Amino acid sequence: MASAIISFLSDYGYQDEFVGVCHGVIARLCPQARVIDITHGVPRHDVRAGALALRAAVPFLPAGVHLAVVDPGVGATGEHARRAVAVRVAYEERVLVGPDNGLLGPAIQALDGAVEAVDVGLSARRLEPVSATFHGRDIFAPVAAALAGGEALAALGEPLAPGALRELRLGQATLRDDGLLVHVLALDHFGNLALDASADQLGDAGLRAGTAVELQIGGRRLRVPYALTFADVAPGELLLYEDSASMAALAVNLGSAATALGLAGGDELELRRAQHE
Amino acid sequence: MASAIISFLSDYGYQDEFVGVCHGVIARLCPQARVIDITHGVPRHDVRAGALALRAAVPFLPAGVHLAVVDPGVGATGEHARRAVAVRVAYEERVLVGPDNGLLGPAIQALDGAVEAVDVGLSARRLEPVSATFHGRDIFAPVAAALAGGEALAALGEPLAPGALRELRLGQATLRDDGLLVHVLALDHFGNLALDASADQLGDAGLRAGTAVELQIGGRRLRVPYALTFADVAPGELLLYEDSASMAALAVNLGSAATALGLAGGDELELRRAQHE
Amino acid sequence: MASAIISFLSDYGYQDEFVGVCHGVIARLCPQARVIDITHGVPRHDVRAGALALRAAVPFLPAGVHLAVVDPGVGATGEHARRAVAVRVAYEERVLVGPDNGLLGPAIQALDGAVEAVDVGLSARRLEPVSATFHGRDIFAPVAAALAGGEALAALGEPLAPGALRELRLGQATLRDDGLLVHVLALDHFGNLALDASADQLGDAGLRAGTAVELQIGGRRLRVPYALTFADVAPGELLLYEDSASMAALAVNLGSAATALGLAGGDELELRRAQHE
Repeated sequence: MASAIISFLSDYGYQDEFVGVCHGVIARLCPQARVIDITHGVPRHDVRAGALALRAAVPFLPAGVHLAVVDPGVGATGEHARRAVAVRVAYEERVLVGPDNGLLGPAIQALDGAVEAVDVGLSARRLEPVSATFHGRDIFAPVAAALAGGEALAALGEPLAPGALRELRLGQATLRDDGLLVHVLALDHFGNLALDASADQLGDAGLRAGTAVELQIGGRRLRVPYALTFADVAPGELLLYEDSASMAALAVNLGSAATALGLAGGDELELRRAQHE
Repeated sequence: MASAIISFLSDYGYQDEFVGVCHGVIARLCPQARVIDITHGVPRHDVRAGALALRAAVPFLPAGVHLAVVDPGVGATGEHARRAVAVRVAYEERVLVGPDNGLLGPAIQALDGAVEAVDVGLSARRLEPVSATFHGRDIFAPVAAALAGGEALAALGEPLAPGALRELRLGQATLRDDGLLVHVLALDHFGNLALDASADQLGDAGLRAGTAVELQIGGRRLRVPYALTFADVAPGELLLYEDSASMAALAVNLGSAATALGLAGGDELELRRAQHE
Repeated sequence: MASAIISFLSDYGYQDEFVGVCHGVIARLCPQARVIDITHGVPRHDVRAGALALRAAVPFLPAGVHLAVVDPGVGATGEHARRAVAVRVAYEERVLVGPDNGLLGPAIQALDGAVEAVDVGLSARRLEPVSATFHGRDIFAPVAAALAGGEALAALGEPLAPGALRELRLGQATLRDDGLLVHVLALDHFGNLALDASADQLGDAGLRAGTAVELQIGGRRLRVPYALTFADVAPGELLLYEDSASMAALAVNLGSAATALGLAGGDELELRRAQHE
């Protein structure tokens, strides 16, 4: 039964028992569920990085429940409160479970949009007593387990209009007369920098693989090749390339573009066709 | 069959093949066993941190075998020798497997105490040749696999009086006239500091959620709110709260209390009711 | 069915979704496959470290498919191109899948050598569109899944002579008149240094457990005991020992030999019998 697969992403890290505890909760409540860990190394509290990793992963994951917890607002009440939600999307009837803080938004979009949502903050499936600080254990994992066990979404909480879910604002590449203004979306373990321009947008800006591109970062200007893969340039050299999510990205062959360029998430830079030298 | 679940905690880390090798050993010996990783990120050789993580996890794990290896004394003989043990507890007939160096003690207590124990150091189930330095692979994983496969505890080693198992000395909060003397038990991936006082003990010292508490660390005095969750204070602000294990803890909203206070495991501090300003 | 087990090693790290995505690809293509993670913490691009970890792990893993990806040359074409391969070995009919850059070589040797190989770079099982930079997702995981699902190796690519597979050059201990010249093979999470001498070679050089050994590192000379395990020396003290792979190794009890000696992979040192003092 496909719905017995739960994929799980969080910023819980690998030092503590948090991830194992959530696995334990699921195994107790739904012994037949199989859990696929996406990653638990999302930088702590970084909802944006978690949302991007989740969006990148979901197309390659089996149908089922996607459990995601990056939750700096856990347990807050009143004006700071964020909802706890479970959301069914159009694609393969998958359900996403997590805090309603923007974390799920890009993945929901990638999965053809939300078709049903419930607020599970007071779900009957919660683990009692519910702690104020570990809703992964006490709310989200139990709800995911219930869904994997075949319970109806509607039975797990209060109905919520899909349109009420919180979106995540991501940067947007902007086409200018003389180039493309882009931002660093994310940096990975290898130091590669994903940009918020699709490969198509590079083409719209007149940038073609196999040519040279001028990179402007503040006052600095660098000439880098638009290549296909890392080894197309010498070790230690920069390149622009289309990454495995079809986005523009910067890398250093056998090195770290993040370190070489001193860039981090959100930083702005400009790409344009390099003049012939 | 519930006993075919093995949960696994260690300080083996994620850099090397050690954890995968133990999974492999289990899969070869007991193919039907399912392994739930609790964490392998316990700080190396830190028996106390491992014991606390194990104790926090076990109530949420399925019944079965709890395999735990933080084993600085691996392979030692003579006066330095530590036993290798398997211990049945009263709660759900679970069995814990690991070195007898205090690592298992707090979890055994949390599971209603030991009812049967065996010394597995010379178990017939060991992988030959037994190395001097990797008993996770050569003794503990094979014994856990045998238990998951349904073998009787008594058949896996020499009987041992449960009372002979080594205890772990943990700090104790002390109620004083003017407050509560506590110690840092552990710090997690988020920089949150667990203290050795239960939420009940905070109450006994006259500290109530929703009020202000004075923190004394050496000569320093700080006023912090006793709140319910992180977002109850502004980003970057300290708070005292009851954590998900019902213990007193210190955190910084969206930050690290360990860094902010410069505290580590074992450090002492005092909590008392803040005077009205 | 034994062949439905896939063990998986990479340098993808734990920060990103890369490992989870490969798990997802496998689960979609071969739902009955079970994946055992060996480690994903191989230092990035370090083919040698990955090859040594894989070799150390395979004897303890169940029969099936060993998927390994440390692939700095991913996607390169022309003179820099490395093949993508699947290789059947003599031992238990296991199949290794990964880049043909030396990563698989030591494990293939440990498993009694290659008996059949195919180039899977253009395999019909690839995920389309194939990215230039994530062949773990697009080539290696799908091929591993197909093998786990029972497909014939020959059907997954173009035949390749096993003798054409790329070997990995590893250092070799050299017996000299007055001792053994050795190199650091690898350092682990605990700071232990594996050397390229087997325990037998130590014996050939007249070094026996229970005696003292002189270590010469450049101009420095140190006297260390050849002991059985860490706790045989005082905390903070160095020892030479036979590690769990039956290789000579250096450690510091409750500390890091890598830090204490300032040594890293590839460094050279000399071992000889210590003179009586």
